Amino acid sequence: DVTQDVDEALIQKFIAEVDNIAIQENLRELTKVPHMATSTGDEKTVQYMLKRWQDPDTGLDQAWREEYKVYLSFPDPNTPNKVTVVSPSDAVLYTAREKEKAYSPDQEDPEVVQPYAAYAPAGHPKGRLVYANQGKPSDYLLLNQTLDLTGTIAITRYGGEGRAGKAINAAPYGVIGVLVYTDPWDINDGKMSDTNETYPYSWYMPPSGVERGSFNTHYGDMLTPYLAAKDDTYRIPAKNITGIPPIPTQPIGFEDAYALICALGGEAAPSEWQGAFKCTYNLGGPGFKPTSTFNNSDVKLDIYNREELKNSANVMGVIRGSVEPDRYVIYGNHRDSWVHGAIDPSSGTSVMLEVTRVLGRMVKQGKWRPRRSIIFGSWGAEEFGLIGSTEYTEEYYSKLSERSVAYINVDISVFANATLRASGSPSAQSVILKASKQVKTPGSDSTSVYDNWIRYFNRTSPTYGVIPNVGFLTGAGSDYAAFIHFLGITSMDISYTYDRTKTRARIYPAYHTAYDTFDYSSKFIDPGFTSHQTVARTAGNVLMRLADSLLLPFNCSDYAETLEGYLNKALELYTDGLAAHSISIKPLKDAVSKFRFAAASLDKLIRDSDLADETPLKVRRINDQLMLLDRAFLDPVAFPDRYGFRHVIWASSNAGQPTFPGLADAYARATSTGLDSDWKEAHRQLSTLIQAIQGAAHTLGDVI
Amino acid sequence: DVTQDVDEALIQKFIAEVDNIAIQENLRELTKVPHMATSTGDEKTVQYMLKRWQDPDTGLDQAWREEYKVYLSFPDPNTPNKVTVVSPSDAVLYTAREKEKAYSPDQEDPEVVQPYAAYAPAGHPKGRLVYANQGKPSDYLLLNQTLDLTGTIAITRYGGEGRAGKAINAAPYGVIGVLVYTDPWDINDGKMSDTNETYPYSWYMPPSGVERGSFNTHYGDMLTPYLAAKDDTYRIPAKNITGIPPIPTQPIGFEDAYALICALGGEAAPSEWQGAFKCTYNLGGPGFKPTSTFNNSDVKLDIYNREELKNSANVMGVIRGSVEPDRYVIYGNHRDSWVHGAIDPSSGTSVMLEVTRVLGRMVKQGKWRPRRSIIFGSWGAEEFGLIGSTEYTEEYYSKLSERSVAYINVDISVFANATLRASGSPSAQSVILKASKQVKTPGSDSTSVYDNWIRYFNRTSPTYGVIPNVGFLTGAGSDYAAFIHFLGITSMDISYTYDRTKTRARIYPAYHTAYDTFDYSSKFIDPGFTSHQTVARTAGNVLMRLADSLLLPFNCSDYAETLEGYLNKALELYTDGLAAHSISIKPLKDAVSKFRFAAASLDKLIRDSDLADETPLKVRRINDQLMLLDRAFLDPVAFPDRYGFRHVIWASSNAGQPTFPGLADAYARATSTGLDSDWKEAHRQLSTLIQAIQGAAHTLGDVI
Ligand SMILES: [Ca+2]
Ligand SMILES: [Ca+2]
Ligand SMILES: [Zn+2]
Ligand SMILES: [Zn+2]
Ligand SMILES: [Zn+2]
Ligand SMILES: [Zn+2]
Repeated sequence: DVTQDVDEALIQKFIAEVDNIAIQENLRELTKVPHMATSTGDEKTVQYMLKRWQDPDTGLDQAWREEYKVYLSFPDPNTPNKVTVVSPSDAVLYTAREKEKAYSPDQEDPEVVQPYAAYAPAGHPKGRLVYANQGKPSDYLLLNQTLDLTGTIAITRYGGEGRAGKAINAAPYGVIGVLVYTDPWDINDGKMSDTNETYPYSWYMPPSGVERGSFNTHYGDMLTPYLAAKDDTYRIPAKNITGIPPIPTQPIGFEDAYALICALGGEAAPSEWQGAFKCTYNLGGPGFKPTSTFNNSDVKLDIYNREELKNSANVMGVIRGSVEPDRYVIYGNHRDSWVHGAIDPSSGTSVMLEVTRVLGRMVKQGKWRPRRSIIFGSWGAEEFGLIGSTEYTEEYYSKLSERSVAYINVDISVFANATLRASGSPSAQSVILKASKQVKTPGSDSTSVYDNWIRYFNRTSPTYGVIPNVGFLTGAGSDYAAFIHFLGITSMDISYTYDRTKTRARIYPAYHTAYDTFDYSSKFIDPGFTSHQTVARTAGNVLMRLADSLLLPFNCSDYAETLEGYLNKALELYTDGLAAHSISIKPLKDAVSKFRFAAASLDKLIRDSDLADETPLKVRRINDQLMLLDRAFLDPVAFPDRYGFRHVIWASSNAGQPTFPGLADAYARATSTGLDSDWKEAHRQLSTLIQAIQGAAHTLGDVI
Repeated sequence: DVTQDVDEALIQKFIAEVDNIAIQENLRELTKVPHMATSTGDEKTVQYMLKRWQDPDTGLDQAWREEYKVYLSFPDPNTPNKVTVVSPSDAVLYTAREKEKAYSPDQEDPEVVQPYAAYAPAGHPKGRLVYANQGKPSDYLLLNQTLDLTGTIAITRYGGEGRAGKAINAAPYGVIGVLVYTDPWDINDGKMSDTNETYPYSWYMPPSGVERGSFNTHYGDMLTPYLAAKDDTYRIPAKNITGIPPIPTQPIGFEDAYALICALGGEAAPSEWQGAFKCTYNLGGPGFKPTSTFNNSDVKLDIYNREELKNSANVMGVIRGSVEPDRYVIYGNHRDSWVHGAIDPSSGTSVMLEVTRVLGRMVKQGKWRPRRSIIFGSWGAEEFGLIGSTEYTEEYYSKLSERSVAYINVDISVFANATLRASGSPSAQSVILKASKQVKTPGSDSTSVYDNWIRYFNRTSPTYGVIPNVGFLTGAGSDYAAFIHFLGITSMDISYTYDRTKTRARIYPAYHTAYDTFDYSSKFIDPGFTSHQTVARTAGNVLMRLADSLLLPFNCSDYAETLEGYLNKALELYTDGLAAHSISIKPLKDAVSKFRFAAASLDKLIRDSDLADETPLKVRRINDQLMLLDRAFLDPVAFPDRYGFRHVIWASSNAGQPTFPGLADAYARATSTGLDSDWKEAHRQLSTLIQAIQGAAHTLGDVI
């Protein structure tokens, strides 16, 4: 039936059937063993996903695995990385922990990977220690004003700068090695004691906990930009990789960082550099203070990381659409973790499996078949740089570009159990809000997710007044990156998260540590798994609406509102500076007006149409306009040096301004250097942006 | 009616109504005055197109103009370019003609632009003359073996190398100026005398005739790559333009070339360098021979070309589709000429106007409305580098990418009256052949265009046996370039052309001269205008089929056949050489097989469907697969340094092999330099190609 539309009763049925205990059991299964990408534990999760998605009663129409041969980085299990303090006579005065302390058998699993900085090079630098705050460019600049950094080792804390950046920014000053740790100030609300304060007594990170991570700047398999990493695919020489640490780097626990930092000599660091340790954070002499037992000693890193080509699997599953099988709604999450990954990513995977169980059963029972096709993706090797999802988009670029309606990402589904958080393309705001009104908040029969959400995150929309604040997908923090930035597919990222009045933790404290376990999640993150359930209900509701609505539930006027917000900021920040270089910002204003006008005209066309009575081709035409809106903002030459960033509105930016990223970054650079060539680039970015907005407006207006 | 299909009776009606005399009168009107891009004559043609397309009885639904501010190059009308022979005492011994000789009042029009090399720089080089054949890299290489080219002026003949290349290749050897002329051997079958052999006695070029042209390598407005050239658009600095002559360059008639070349000293040029002049072509001493009156003299160029930003107009017209208005069939030709341009481009424009007259009348009378929308484009400034059409594709990139079914280009519609010639994407072969069977050849009631064509150009297809040979659109010779190479829209180029057994002329001899007039065309190219009529009938038939067919008349298995032909050539040429560098060509073979399999499966789905009985969305789905097939071969990073070449199958190539262009060029380079980095690029090109072919195959298979 070509007029098939959303069946609200089926959505209610879906919501009712989503079960918290089922999610809990999914999570228990997924987190039995560590499942770092391409490990034997990872393969177990592949098999589990396949078993679930091929289940005759609750599975999907089809499920299969797809493999890529990708470039990963691991420590050497036989020769662990070491961080030591070495005296002038080469005596080892101090050795940092090689693994995290065990509080439950989980941490003793031999498959727990030693904490390391993936893609940091092997090497054995030895030098005087300095404290470099967050390792930002400004941090090293300041440090360099009083200290000669040549030959030093810098200790930095997580936050404020990407992982790889801490070493990339350091190397030009002659720094030869970098340590990174998580300061209790940033993650534990200052708590430090594992005898009564940290896990297993609370959700706080134990002193030996270490955040692992991928230390790279670009996403996707680094040897095969723009090419899916098949066996025979061309690979760039590893020496040509950019965006990774040029010097050995190692993450350590705050227990060890405490010992090192509190022994540092030199001047006191600025107050914003101070953390939670009960000592003054000095900059380093360089090196330790004369009164320390480490006086005159160096810090030595022995890093044995090695890169390997490994086969990583995505698990794919589909439900074929009944009316428009050539339209795809994609729902995905990564499957690989650093250790057990109960929260990252298995909280999302256990939610995805519950969504597919309920939908799969409706399909198998013949009660439901979506109007459009649904593709589920369980991505591999996300932790190493969103690799599985990116290779997938490279391999199926044409097909996905032509046919994808939307991508929904649920990675960490529950950071904490306070409120929904959602980010996405502005045209998806309305469907997320609608779904959130239909789902109740955990443990309540009366408060909707929407009503709860609006108390935690809200904004005043010129169109709607106060509404929950749907964020923007401006970065590459999870697998939505290739979908929104590279393919221009309208994307969303959905989770449950903190009450920010209760903690200033950068992220949940067990993030990427050996403590991110079923025990941790079930005790401290979401006892009873009702927040998981709430996310499953909300994301599944969005999914069903996208897949079933006769008219796609996208609102192009909401996009106009966002562009107007960005425009106002740009007018405020850049008008005069551009004019001083004979660049008029007026055409940008005109382009946004044109977009608003075109969006209003499409909205009017929709309002004036009784779509169920229209020819199916007219509905398809409007749906194509809505579906392809984000695609119209792609420009593959806008940011030629930044892999996979083609969306001129959502590309990541360093300028830190809530406005158009290419213009913001180019303007910041031009004002800082004053170079004519940089002002030219600012003008080019402005023209590129104007053309994209106008081009998008053209797609919304009358089709001929 | 969503099942609306081609009405064969309407096609017959269209064919019957296309009138040769109407075309003749269109041509007479269009060629009254010279209409070089942005001249007053050009504006007259803009007005004429608008008048015709806005005619209440025979016009289109709508017509309008669109302007771009583009970078053009003109001689200075007050200070004409000069080419002289200057003695050591600075006496002018010889002056080349500044304008072509008049044989009819047309040539005396003050608006006839002096022959010049557009985009060649101004300057006054003076030096010894050398003869450099066609100005190919190999020509200068050979010349440089015996002569010091520093400070010389090179005279070259048209052919064998692009216009700009003749100077670009010369400059590294120290050559300071370039002359270019058309050798009677290449254009006139050797004829040279204007007292009885050349125009006005025949179609041959008179001795003073000069081919003008745009001397650039990249297409589109050179200051605004990838951005539509609006008033405020960012423009690159003119000094950053690449692909234009680095040294002054001037085209001259063969009358003057004769005087210069036959006076040259030095050794005799190789036999393949000899032309039709009744003398031995010497290489130059450098300079003239001692026995010449030019002994010890230099050739001096005084070039006053200047670049200007000018407003150039496209004229656009549309017929709105009834069922799928959001699907576009585009038909276009440029409007600007060098002088009167009776053949180039007005033969095509007069055909386009006859097509729109007949179709427009059917629309205005309510007898017909196409299923899909038709867009007509009368492009500006093609002669300066396909500028109008390219800026159009830049401005409307998203809309056109999403919705365009096909682009039909009819530039020079009649080169000569012997046979149809067509080039296009392989999937368009079938509709061109079908249309050509329904149209009769000029002056015959029985012979079809197809039957005539197959006698002149044919090939043996593995699928069909002997059929007319539809060429490939591998270059950027006319306005199809941006559509096929940049946008990946299935494109076609259609014309009538020579009997190659009767002439070896490079092109019709009045090409880009002041003799390309109504008089010339009506006397020597197509007396009675019946070949024009035949092209109008054939191209219009193709247009109606593309616009009206329920199922798009594209055949994806014909694309498979072409890929297989390219594959076989690649296997033959590259298998061993690649294997020697550990690069396997086997995945390419597998990709082509996969494509063939997917094409066969789509063909089967089509065969097994009774489309008029299917849901309109199923037909649309298949049509989208066919429409988007060429799009799937686009890769914006395949050839990053070559503006607008993104189609990995049809990009132009220097290797001169009938196979995949990126692989062919990279392989040629790698074998010639032997550099590891060049072999890596060959591998990258191979992987890029494989991914594109596989990606295209994915779009043809089952949609989920
Ligand atoms: Ca890749
Ligand atoms: Ca341009
Ligand atoms: Zn994650
Ligand atoms: Zn993670
Ligand atoms: Zn032309
Ligand atoms: Zn031309």
